[in-house]
Amino acid sequence: MTNTGQTAALPSGDDIPPTRVLSIASHVVSGYVGNSVSTFVMQLLGLEVCSLNTVQFSNHTGYGRWTGTRIPPSEIDALYDGLKANELADFDMLATGYVPGDEGLEAVGRIAKELKSKGGTGGGKTRFFWVLDPVMGDSGKLYVSEKVVPVYKNLLPLADLITPNQYEVEWLTDIKLTSLADVAAALKKFHNDFKTPHIIISSIQSLVSDDEFVCVGSSMNTDGTPRAFTITVPMLRGPFVGTGDMFASLMVSHFRHAAADAGLLDKPSWMSPDTVKATDLPLARAAEIVLSSMDRVLKKTGEARDRQIKFLDENDTSKEADMKRVRYMRAAELRLIHCVEEIRRPCLRFTAKEFHE
Amino acid sequence: MTNTGQTAALPSGDDIPPTRVLSIASHVVSGYVGNSVSTFVMQLLGLEVCSLNTVQFSNHTGYGRWTGTRIPPSEIDALYDGLKANELADFDMLATGYVPGDEGLEAVGRIAKELKSKGGTGGGKTRFFWVLDPVMGDSGKLYVSEKVVPVYKNLLPLADLITPNQYEVEWLTDIKLTSLADVAAALKKFHNDFKTPHIIISSIQSLVSDDEFVCVGSSMNTDGTPRAFTITVPMLRGPFVGTGDMFASLMVSHFRHAAADAGLLDKPSWMSPDTVKATDLPLARAAEIVLSSMDRVLKKTGEARDRQIKFLDENDTSKEADMKRVRYMRAAELRLIHCVEEIRRPCLRFTAKEFHE
Repeated sequence: MTNTGQTAALPSGDDIPPTRVLSIASHVVSGYVGNSVSTFVMQLLGLEVCSLNTVQFSNHTGYGRWTGTRIPPSEIDALYDGLKANELADFDMLATGYVPGDEGLEAVGRIAKELKSKGGTGGGKTRFFWVLDPVMGDSGKLYVSEKVVPVYKNLLPLADLITPNQYEVEWLTDIKLTSLADVAAALKKFHNDFKTPHIIISSIQSLVSDDEFVCVGSSMNTDGTPRAFTITVPMLRGPFVGTGDMFASLMVSHFRHAAADAGLLDKPSWMSPDTVKATDLPLARAAEIVLSSMDRVLKKTGEARDRQIKFLDENDTSKEADMKRVRYMRAAELRLIHCVEEIRRPCLRFTAKEFHE
Repeated sequence: MTNTGQTAALPSGDDIPPTRVLSIASHVVSGYVGNSVSTFVMQLLGLEVCSLNTVQFSNHTGYGRWTGTRIPPSEIDALYDGLKANELADFDMLATGYVPGDEGLEAVGRIAKELKSKGGTGGGKTRFFWVLDPVMGDSGKLYVSEKVVPVYKNLLPLADLITPNQYEVEWLTDIKLTSLADVAAALKKFHNDFKTPHIIISSIQSLVSDDEFVCVGSSMNTDGTPRAFTITVPMLRGPFVGTGDMFASLMVSHFRHAAADAGLLDKPSWMSPDTVKATDLPLARAAEIVLSSMDRVLKKTGEARDRQIKFLDENDTSKEADMKRVRYMRAAELRLIHCVEEIRRPCLRFTAKEFHE
């Protein structure tokens, strides 16, 4: 049972063992997506983050125009080789987000395989753990090449926790989520067919009222069956950008902490014994905190965005539709640096419930 | 008069006006130099940081081996153009660190000129301010091409605050610092010949006892004469890496705050009236806080480093000298994420004194 309203007991730099995370994702000069969100979030929560940037863009592509370049897949390999040559590749965790193209993703897969085969760090004290955010698209639109989809399917058995959104679940499982039974079928497919131990789907919109969304998570039992829970959260009016990246990076931090609390860091994939019920899983504990943080950050972001958009609507005489879009996009950027306390010391607001189809 | 021992009144995300900083410096995947230090530091202190990475290396070059690439100078221009196209180049401040090569530095100079010519943001409420860290070398060793030196000299009149180390002062002024009179001459030369309004030299080692170093700062009077102060700080045994980057990024944050407190943000180069004496300058106020933060971060870093090096010396049977160096380098990385409170809420430990030759 969770005491909502309490400040969550949270890791600080001093009281958790050093955790080295390799974070492979995009970087933007201005704004908050990819590593430009997750590095700060994970650092605030006490992790040693090594950020490998797959792209450097001026801003996120939602603005409609941007400059910058993707790094070639060979550069991902080269940077990892440089880390290895200096004994700096002793990672406890790997967090991966947007990787442009199938070849880049294959390079990431090779790194994951190698880190996994080393088993972990510190004489087996921590088993290596990969949080894979299969960034492919959102709201009915793919933003990667379709060639990436089968590569992700091949990588799923290597991942320990995946954080797909609803649309990505549909691409990966070929199951359209139109009912709770569909969600249950997708979870089963992830556990059974892809052997993914932990899954968390940050927000499912189609199954609930317009005022709420539901987050569904599951850690599998030893027989591969799901142990699933849901957390219902008030819907904050979008659009927001970078929320998937923020959710994944908060999950990396808090799942690590919850698994440490439960004494599971030396277990394969930090799996809980079968006796632990769904709502008592470290994954549920982490998700409650993560969603509590997200809720506050998005509330602050939404309020600031609405003030800015009101100002734009009253004062912006620009006739150009693309300039309007650019200004709206900027207004909607996450208020990340204004939310240090919400990230470091969130109040628990939500409680996991048993999932029923 | 400063009350040492008090927690400094510090900016938080909520109570300072939004400040957008373009930070142009290097990025390393593992460890803490360049933007890999300064982004986190400035974000912790409430600034909106836009990080433009001039290189992406696996680790800093002090390890002796590394992988990764420098971005070409044209890419610096392109990224800035992307920001402009989206109205994202409305920066209050520019912070520049390591830029590889003279052409890259010239690109940075063009950006600085353009931002300066726009004058500032918010209807003249904030004058644009450039903190230039002329990263060239340290401890008698240049780590840039000599061709960079004249480019820096050309750029000095555009900068508002420069943060050179002792070695860089010597390169820029052609004055060897062997006495306080030399330091005074260098400050005069910066103010008079280069028209640089604010200078802070983080640590001068040769002039004081082995147990202390002295930080010297000066803001010029309207007639171009220096108003100089010193802050004496206990010497912590090095080696440390990334301290120059940390010092500069803390100065960006705290000088902005001190200038805001003094109501100077709309003044050219945030200059104080001539009636303000050296030890009451916002530059002095900022430096006291910056050095207090640095002292704590370096103390924590030094203790952790010494424990790790003791462990290595007792257990490391590696005969390879280069592997030993690599392990020592890693042991000396800044304990940045363990020092969130030391950065956000430092206790004031030092007081500026009038500079006397």
